[in-house]
Amino acid sequence: MDVMRAVVMRDRKLMVADVPVPQPGRGEVLARTLACGICGSDLHALKHAERMVEAGRRAGNPRVMDLGRDVVMGHEFCAEIVEHGPGTTRAVPAGTRVCSRPTLARESGPESIGYSNDNPGGYGQYMRLSEALLLPVPNGLPIDHAALTEPMAVGVHAVAKARLAPDDAPLVIGCGPVGLAVIAALRLAKVEPIVAADFSPRRRELATTLGAHVVVDPATSSVWAHRPAERTPIVFECVGVPGVLDQVMAAAPRGARIVVVGVCMEPDTIHPLIGIVKELNLQFVLGYTPDEFAATLRHIAEGEIPAAPLITGHVGLDGVPGAFEELGSPERHAKILVHPHAG
Amino acid sequence: MDVMRAVVMRDRKLMVADVPVPQPGRGEVLARTLACGICGSDLHALKHAERMVEAGRRAGNPRVMDLGRDVVMGHEFCAEIVEHGPGTTRAVPAGTRVCSRPTLARESGPESIGYSNDNPGGYGQYMRLSEALLLPVPNGLPIDHAALTEPMAVGVHAVAKARLAPDDAPLVIGCGPVGLAVIAALRLAKVEPIVAADFSPRRRELATTLGAHVVVDPATSSVWAHRPAERTPIVFECVGVPGVLDQVMAAAPRGARIVVVGVCMEPDTIHPLIGIVKELNLQFVLGYTPDEFAATLRHIAEGEIPAAPLITGHVGLDGVPGAFEELGSPERHAKILVHPHAG
Repeated sequence: MDVMRAVVMRDRKLMVADVPVPQPGRGEVLARTLACGICGSDLHALKHAERMVEAGRRAGNPRVMDLGRDVVMGHEFCAEIVEHGPGTTRAVPAGTRVCSRPTLARESGPESIGYSNDNPGGYGQYMRLSEALLLPVPNGLPIDHAALTEPMAVGVHAVAKARLAPDDAPLVIGCGPVGLAVIAALRLAKVEPIVAADFSPRRRELATTLGAHVVVDPATSSVWAHRPAERTPIVFECVGVPGVLDQVMAAAPRGARIVVVGVCMEPDTIHPLIGIVKELNLQFVLGYTPDEFAATLRHIAEGEIPAAPLITGHVGLDGVPGAFEELGSPERHAKILVHPHAG
Repeated sequence: MDVMRAVVMRDRKLMVADVPVPQPGRGEVLARTLACGICGSDLHALKHAERMVEAGRRAGNPRVMDLGRDVVMGHEFCAEIVEHGPGTTRAVPAGTRVCSRPTLARESGPESIGYSNDNPGGYGQYMRLSEALLLPVPNGLPIDHAALTEPMAVGVHAVAKARLAPDDAPLVIGCGPVGLAVIAALRLAKVEPIVAADFSPRRRELATTLGAHVVVDPATSSVWAHRPAERTPIVFECVGVPGVLDQVMAAAPRGARIVVVGVCMEPDTIHPLIGIVKELNLQFVLGYTPDEFAATLRHIAEGEIPAAPLITGHVGLDGVPGAFEELGSPERHAKILVHPHAG
């Protein structure tokens, strides 16, 4: 087994190709990819690859992608252990279904799985994973639900970083997968009422299913009118498109806190004076801690974070390029899952 | 006494002119201006008057300036009560030297003193002040030091909003009057070490005088190298010029908090992805609470906030336009005080 099928990003396009099966290094396992979610960041990465690389460089990442070489993306996955590499404890036996943060814990430093030339992500049939990061999937949990651990952990982390006070009134702007994950995490934190806004009726419906108490169409109603009087809004910006942060800052009441969860890959213009006059606070957030990731898998397994409603489609590898297209329109889909061995 | 001399902003220029003496309304006093500091915001307001008005409008201020009419600026003042208007208690007698926040507390809502067509600030010989906001100047405190209450309160407020933890390592970017006020407030809060950066040798010298433990010339040395290892930097951005916030975000280490004290009047471009990747926090701050303002006057009177070193020049009204020019170059001046009855 030297070669596997994978969706590769090559010349800024996605295509299905044969690529080498990754070899597990020291402390690593080879795993068969069972399911992998398509993330908005992957759509961004395809569209704004240079910007992503440049931003990674500016942020001091020593291992940015080389866009001249193939990249196999996919960082929201559930996989099954096939074989153990050198220096492993084999504590988790072959055949076990696992989740993992999309990171290799190497002696030379952490490496990305998915946004990497060398470590293929879940859009390939096989991956290498660090044994130390493996989380066995609880018995009976569908692979598709387990694959949602990563995106839902983003919501759990954002809510934790928000350090909610009893008086805070949460407002979720944008009900794509990121906003829905935040809503699920707010519901888990027993915060009420959760107000959520999106232009798409389908997404507002999903927001309600995930736990929003009030949903708002910004085209017809002010999102700010629905919070309880006297409570300070804490806004979760889950859109990540240039201009939205400035709009939120302009509309936010004095003293509001804004948690920036949506990933805007492009430079963005704000009016600092607006922030100053209203003494706004912006908390940028990313990812999750190892504990938050593990807790999210447990919450999904126990039904405390609903995963099923988010899944709106399935594709094999051949369907991935088309799925990227479809995800550009918010009306039809939330999360499309890739089954790399199907079809 | 119907007419007074004042520096007015007229047709986007400063000029000395005769204007009506303001009449104290209900609950107000007429006060003779003794000293008034020239603030960087006044320089901004002269240069970017339209932007300031537009931002005020966007922020929901119902009483923005009409730039077609005269404005007498000046919001850092010490004055002496001349007479009491209707409905006053006269608890503070005529002849008393007072400070006040630059606000009128009117039944119809608060009004600005200084950034207003109707309520002249300290660049005029007389002002109206709300009796309820008067703070008698402690015996023996020079009027120039009392006039610094307002700008130093900005530093006290910024440090309070920063909610410093014992592990935080403060870094002050820019040692103009705002940065110096932050340094004085950090010293008052017994934080060490205070690291401060400015390109100007004169300002670095002032920073040391005000309490900075380490001063850095960003042209020759990284401002980030001087913080104690293992401590999280909390950056006070006290420059307020487009591009600085993005630079600070790009250079800041992961998890840094940035307190935006410098007032940038123009739109500004940031790279949200940099903030996201490092999970930065931005806290915009403005002004001070009534308690912070009163406490600052006490701290100055008790010598806990040093005021004298900041004062680098004095002018009469005729000297104000020239002083605005001089303050454009950071090397010579920190705070120039206007004595409207001198000369």
